[in-house]
Formats: sequence, C-alpha cells, structure tokens
Amino acid sequence: MSELRQNRSDLKAFFEPKSVAVFGSLKDGVGLGYGVIRNMLQFGYSGKIYPVSPSYNGEVLGFRAYSAVNDVAEPIEAAIVITPPPTVPGIIEQCARKGVKAAVIVSENFAEAGSEGAKFQQQLVDIVHRTGIRIIGPNTIGVFNPASGFITNPYLTIQDKIRKGGISYCSQTGYVGLAAKPLEDLAMPVSKLCDIGNKCDVDESDVLNYMADDPQTKVVAMHIENVKDGRRFMEAARRVVARKPLLILKGGRSEAGAEAMVSHTASLAGSEQVYDAVIKQVGALRLNSWEEYWEVPKVFAEQPLPRGNRIAIITGAGGLGVVVVDVAVESGLTIAKFSPATKMRLTKLSPRLGGNPIDLGPVLTVKEDPFSVQREIIEAVLEDENVDCAAVSVYAGFDALIAPITQMFDSLKHNKSKPMTIWIYGMKLHVLDEMLCQLESRNLPTYLDFELAVKALGFAARYSRTKMEAIV
Amino acid sequence: MSELRQNRSDLKAFFEPKSVAVFGSLKDGVGLGYGVIRNMLQFGYSGKIYPVSPSYNGEVLGFRAYSAVNDVAEPIEAAIVITPPPTVPGIIEQCARKGVKAAVIVSENFAEAGSEGAKFQQQLVDIVHRTGIRIIGPNTIGVFNPASGFITNPYLTIQDKIRKGGISYCSQTGYVGLAAKPLEDLAMPVSKLCDIGNKCDVDESDVLNYMADDPQTKVVAMHIENVKDGRRFMEAARRVVARKPLLILKGGRSEAGAEAMVSHTASLAGSEQVYDAVIKQVGALRLNSWEEYWEVPKVFAEQPLPRGNRIAIITGAGGLGVVVVDVAVESGLTIAKFSPATKMRLTKLSPRLGGNPIDLGPVLTVKEDPFSVQREIIEAVLEDENVDCAAVSVYAGFDALIAPITQMFDSLKHNKSKPMTIWIYGMKLHVLDEMLCQLESRNLPTYLDFELAVKALGFAARYSRTKMEAIV
Repeated sequence: MSELRQNRSDLKAFFEPKSVAVFGSLKDGVGLGYGVIRNMLQFGYSGKIYPVSPSYNGEVLGFRAYSAVNDVAEPIEAAIVITPPPTVPGIIEQCARKGVKAAVIVSENFAEAGSEGAKFQQQLVDIVHRTGIRIIGPNTIGVFNPASGFITNPYLTIQDKIRKGGISYCSQTGYVGLAAKPLEDLAMPVSKLCDIGNKCDVDESDVLNYMADDPQTKVVAMHIENVKDGRRFMEAARRVVARKPLLILKGGRSEAGAEAMVSHTASLAGSEQVYDAVIKQVGALRLNSWEEYWEVPKVFAEQPLPRGNRIAIITGAGGLGVVVVDVAVESGLTIAKFSPATKMRLTKLSPRLGGNPIDLGPVLTVKEDPFSVQREIIEAVLEDENVDCAAVSVYAGFDALIAPITQMFDSLKHNKSKPMTIWIYGMKLHVLDEMLCQLESRNLPTYLDFELAVKALGFAARYSRTKMEAIV
Repeated sequence: MSELRQNRSDLKAFFEPKSVAVFGSLKDGVGLGYGVIRNMLQFGYSGKIYPVSPSYNGEVLGFRAYSAVNDVAEPIEAAIVITPPPTVPGIIEQCARKGVKAAVIVSENFAEAGSEGAKFQQQLVDIVHRTGIRIIGPNTIGVFNPASGFITNPYLTIQDKIRKGGISYCSQTGYVGLAAKPLEDLAMPVSKLCDIGNKCDVDESDVLNYMADDPQTKVVAMHIENVKDGRRFMEAARRVVARKPLLILKGGRSEAGAEAMVSHTASLAGSEQVYDAVIKQVGALRLNSWEEYWEVPKVFAEQPLPRGNRIAIITGAGGLGVVVVDVAVESGLTIAKFSPATKMRLTKLSPRLGGNPIDLGPVLTVKEDPFSVQREIIEAVLEDENVDCAAVSVYAGFDALIAPITQMFDSLKHNKSKPMTIWIYGMKLHVLDEMLCQLESRNLPTYLDFELAVKALGFAARYSRTKMEAIV
C-alpha cells in the first residue's frame, strides 16, 4: 500500500481531536450546534470547544462563541458542521484555511436529495482535493468515541454511560447513532461508532485502515451498501483481518434491495456475486442481518478465539437443545464428543448426564444447590480437551436469581482460553434486561436468543480457522 | 378420517375440565401438588379441585384432601399426576376406574430416563388401551388454558395476566411452560399452551385435530421432533390448514440434531427430506428457529391475511430499509409499486417521498408534528390498491414518546383488511418493553427486530397463497 493512502486513512483527528469547532444553531436548548456541545459535555469530552455562528454573541454552555472560525486564535483540529447545504462549502473552505484536519458534515440534503444538493457535495469534493482537509459525510450522524467522549450527534440522547470496549461499528446509515439502539442498557462494549453517510471523501476503506491500526478496536462490524474503490477496499480489509476480525453486513443482496439502495444514497450497486467473493477472499465474515450486526461482534470483543469448532451445548430443555444443535451444525460447528474423564465427572453429578448437548432440566429440579451443579458442569466441559467453545443456558426466571447467577459466574474456574456464550431465559423482561447487563459487564457475551448465542460462536470458529490457514 | 380417530382427538377434557384430581405432594408451599393447585387458583380456574394424597389429612388451600380418588363422591373429569414413576400406573388405573377422562402426567423419569422408566411407561400405554383413559405425558409440564385458568404446571410462576388471544402453542418440550418465556410482559395473545412430553398416548396428531376444531385457536404453532403416525399426522395437519394457519418447527434437521433428539425423548428420527416434503404438501409453513416459533404466529392471531405479497416498507433510516428489502424478497414478498395517487399524496407530505421503502428519517426531522405525518404515510400506503401489507418502523426513543405513539395508532384510519407489523426501536429497553406491550394489547404485532417484522408478513403471504390455491 502506498504511503499516501495510509496517511489518508489516518482518521485520528475524527475520533480523538484535541479541539473542535462547532457550526450550527446555538439557540439555547434547541439548536443543533447547541445540541452537539451538550452531548460532548455529557460524555466528558475534555478537548477545547469553539462554537461558531455569525448570528450568535456570548457564551454557549460556558464556551465563548465566535462569529467566524478565523477569529479563533488557537489551532483547531476538527469541525462539526450542521448548517444548511448552501453554507457548507464556504465553512469547509474557511476550516481548511484555518488548518482544520477533519470535518464531520452532519447536514442532510446533499447528493441523496437531488441535483441541487449534489452540486454542493461536488464543491466539497473539490475543496478536499485542493486543500487536503478530510470530510466524513455529509448526511451522517458522524462519529462517537466513548473513550474520548467525542461525539458529533446533535440529537438528544438519554444514554449516558456507554460501556467502553472493543467493538467498532461503522455503517452507511444513522442506525449506529446513539438514538437508535439501547447500547447502554445492553452494556455493549463499544470502541467507536461511525456513520460514513454520503462518503464525499472518507469512505469504508479509510475507516477500515484506521480501525486496523486502532489499538482499542478488537473487532470491526461494518455495514456497507457499495464500495468506492474495490482494490483499496480489499487491501484495507486484508489489513484488518490480519489483526482482528472483520464482520460485514452488505445491503442490497437482492435486486430490489439494490434498487432501494440507489435511491437512498445515490450510490451505484455492484454485482452481488462479486461482493460475496471479495468478502470471502479477504477472510472477512459476512453477516446476514442487523441483529447479527449488533449481537455477533461481542463474542470477539469479550472472549478469546476458539482453537477449533467443537462446541459443548448446555441447554435448559432437551427439545431446545435439538434445535440449537441444528443451528450449530449450520453455523459450521461440530458437536463435541466429551472425553471419558469428562463423562465420568458429569455422570457423577447425575446419571442422566454425559451426552452433548447437556440437558440441565432434569438435573436442576432434583439438586438442592442448582448453581454449584451448573458451575461444575460448565467447568467440566470447558476443561475437556475435546471442547473448543461452549454455549450455556441460564435460567433467570425471576429477580431473586440475578444475584446467585452472577455469583456463580464470578466463582467459575473458567478456562479463560476458551470462549463461552450465554443464553438467558425467564419470565420477566426486566429481569432478563438486568441479568444481561450484569453478565455483559463481566465480559460474558449474553443473548436473549439461544440460536444467536450459538451462531456467534460459529462466527468465532470461522475467523479462527481463517487465521490458522493464514499461518499455515 | 374414521369416527374413532376423531373422537380420540377430542381433548376438551384436557383444556376445559369441570373437575380435576391432583396427585402429588400437598406439603404447604413446597409440594408439587400444592403448587399446581396454587397456580390454578392464581389463574382463576373455577372447576372443582380434589387434592389426593394418601399421606395427607385436612385441607389444601381451602380444598378437602382425599386419601384416594375413589373416596370422592362426585364425578371427576381430569387428573394431574406428579408422583414418583412406580406409583403412577396404579394412580392412572384408579382414575380410569373412577371415570376420569384425561390425565396429565407431569412426573419425569419414564422412557426418557432408561429401561426402568420405560417399563412404567409401557404400563401406562396398556392402561390406555384397556380403559380408554387419555394421557398427556409423562415427562411434561402439560397444558395451560388462560381462558379457563386450567394449568397443570406445578412450578412457581410470576406471570399472572397472560393475555387471552388466538395462538395455540404445542411443543415436545417444557419450553412452552410459563416459567421459560415472558409471555405476560410480551402481551402474547395465547389461546392454549401444550407440552406433549413423552407422548405415551396423546400425540401431535391428536393435538392438531383438537386445535383444528377449537374455535378460540386462530393459529397453531407446533414444535415436533418426530411424528408417531405419518398418515394420521398429514390428515390432521390438512384439517388444520383448511381452517387456520399451521406453523411447524421441526427439531433434528441436521444429523447431529437427530442424534441429540433420540437421546432426549427416546424417539426415532425420520428422514429430514420426508418431513420437509410432508410439511409442504399439507400446506403448513416451516419455521426456522425458536425465535420464529414465538414471534411469527402473532401476525396471524392479530391481523387479517394479506390478499397478495406486495409489501410497503416504512423505515427510519435508508440503510436499514435496504437490508430489510433483501429480507422481504427472501421471504417471498415483492416490493409494492405505489399508485400515482399514493405517490402524489406522499410527495405532498415531503418531496423526498414516493418510493418504497419510505425513509421517514428526513421527513420527521423537519416536521413539527411527526406523528400526524407518520399517520398520514401509513394510511396512504395501506389504502393503495397496489399494497397488500406493510411493515412500519416506529421510533420509541424515550418514555415521552409512548403516549403519542399509542395515540397515533389509535387514531389511525387503518385499512383493517390489510395486515401491518411494527418494528420499534429506541434508546431504552424499558421503553421498548412498555411500548411493545401497549401496541400488542391493541392487536398490533410488534417486533424489536425489523427483519422479523418483515418475515412474519412473508409467512402470512405464503399461507394466504396456499389458501387461494386451495380454492382455485
């Protein structure tokens, strides 16, 4: 890869700027410029903030407002722009002259809205080429970095404590914004969020290169509709896969989907077969749904990779286990055959145990201390050399079970070299919500859907195989 | 179908008995016999209850206890048995002599546990053949009928107000018990729950025949692992499909799944290809996961059938819509082309509208009353003669949106002849939980997963086509 390209993928100024200018209405409480500053404060952004608005005098949330970016004496690294399209090229031009490196243009109504908007977007492209300033957007909610507290989303969010973790999400839609997904309640371990919007400059390949290099990013989940430069994309994707898993959700699989895509981002659709081949060739994993996009990465962020594809399944009811075995096989996993030693350990706990999947149901109803039995079962299967990973059912039926379940996992002599996912089920949504949050914050990937808990391990095993094949 | 067979499928005494004998420990607060009586009272069962235990004197929860069923002077229609396996054949024998028609045997450790248990199970089969008493189980949590309050589950449940509705769930595992799924919080419209356990007598075909005839059952969701009598099953399934949709989740698709199945219920696996062909041939719909098992039926219970497969998709973000279009196409739906009149109505609301999927995002952020715009959009597409069904995104970001959203749907001039599903998304789990419950109780099938909301309509369109082909 050429040095120029790598440099152009240095997006650090977008995610960790030391100073930022905000262009947009500063009207108290309702302006979008005001909103983005309020959000930065809420998430503890500690860089310098310079509100800029020709129509505003005085202070905004404790920051002096400027009528033009040029009036600011200090250097400024980044800009957030939320003003009407006709004003945006002028603002970006001023930012470039001031030495701003990175501008996020949140405003809508550019190329996606018709020829008038497309004209303004082309002006932005010209400025990028002429000056070297980088742009994310327009038509985007931009970026969020829980670690630095930097956020470009101007809309009210009532999610305050996003958990810092290893997943970086990148998307071509605002669905990755904090307004759309209860990431806090789900205790999702987030490294970065990024919506690349209309991609007038920064594109999926730049983001991939950045995320490949970013040490906080342990896994990349990317939603794309189209790719600007196929060769560059493949180079960047390969760089990611060599270091960390890359999961791709590609919109527009179907002809109708591709049509819808064109009208949504004014982007051209490529051949579906080509995308599928490229994703395979670079060693990335293809996601099938938005649900997988959100839920699969956490197994990579929270658990080690499996060394093989042999799964142990601990289920709460036999019939459940059978369906889940089907899902495991369809996800590329094989059902582990326990060693004689493990079988002996298990049958000591109950004569009904020893097979895989393990049906907890008949065991727990007769044991006085079901949690210690569960713990022993989980330990036994994870310590078996014939087991590479485990999907574990946990019955979180009612409030009183939350504490003993968390205690059970805290006291687990978990073989930390093998990944485990957890399925919780029970009678009350609020109990399940709370249980999930408690287990996730212990880095235990927890699901409300057993099949998803198994599929996630299937993805982990597939990436693991890709890695090993690369070494061999 | 022979008259004998139809009579043998009359399972009314299992779901609406006027009187029931309970065999099991009556120990205050902890006995399983005590538990099932407590549960019946909790759900308002108004039939007569006769606790039976040789070791118990006095009253249980206000009911006089008997030492033997024969001591009861009045006739008894049903029995619930939760005693150790060696005692069960004797109890069933006594019940048969007393004239009990239907016995649910909850106790475990029969054929599924080894040869000793299999011996007792065979004794039960002999009694059935000799006396004509019917048995559900053993190794089951049995039945639940929210309308009559009749329940055979002895375990503590903290779900009190299960919503009465049209879905009958039948399964070969206790997962359909009230302990495992938050049916109350989900406001799931339940007609009957039934776990057929080891199927020593009553099997899937009996249940299908009963559910075909049951006027409260609007849709049947059945989980099976194996079928006892293929021909009878096909007859029964056809009877259901002629009247109401039949959705089947079949465990053991994979070889490993089939193996797991054999060890779980001691039942023989059939050929997967045969099952698939049979399900298609009778016009039933095959479900792919436990998630679909729980979530798909509600579209049938709460909405009319679509007359065709043309879907309108209203999305909250363009990129979301594209992925969902893919799912729609893969579910057998086609993306509706709006009529010129609808396009005009939509473009009047916003020049950006007119295509399908409809992206609400850019519209709602600029409108002062987003709910009236959303309402008008939903009305416009449902009134379009080129549209058969609609999947609608609703942003339930925070608490304050719950009331206006419910008001919007209450004031909707909804074309009640066309089905609609709703996807809700937002920032807080408790808001989504509450919103879902509110909309479900208005008979609006609501999902936390957009793809599932679309898939459900795909199932509805497929059943609709089956029906129409049958007429032609």
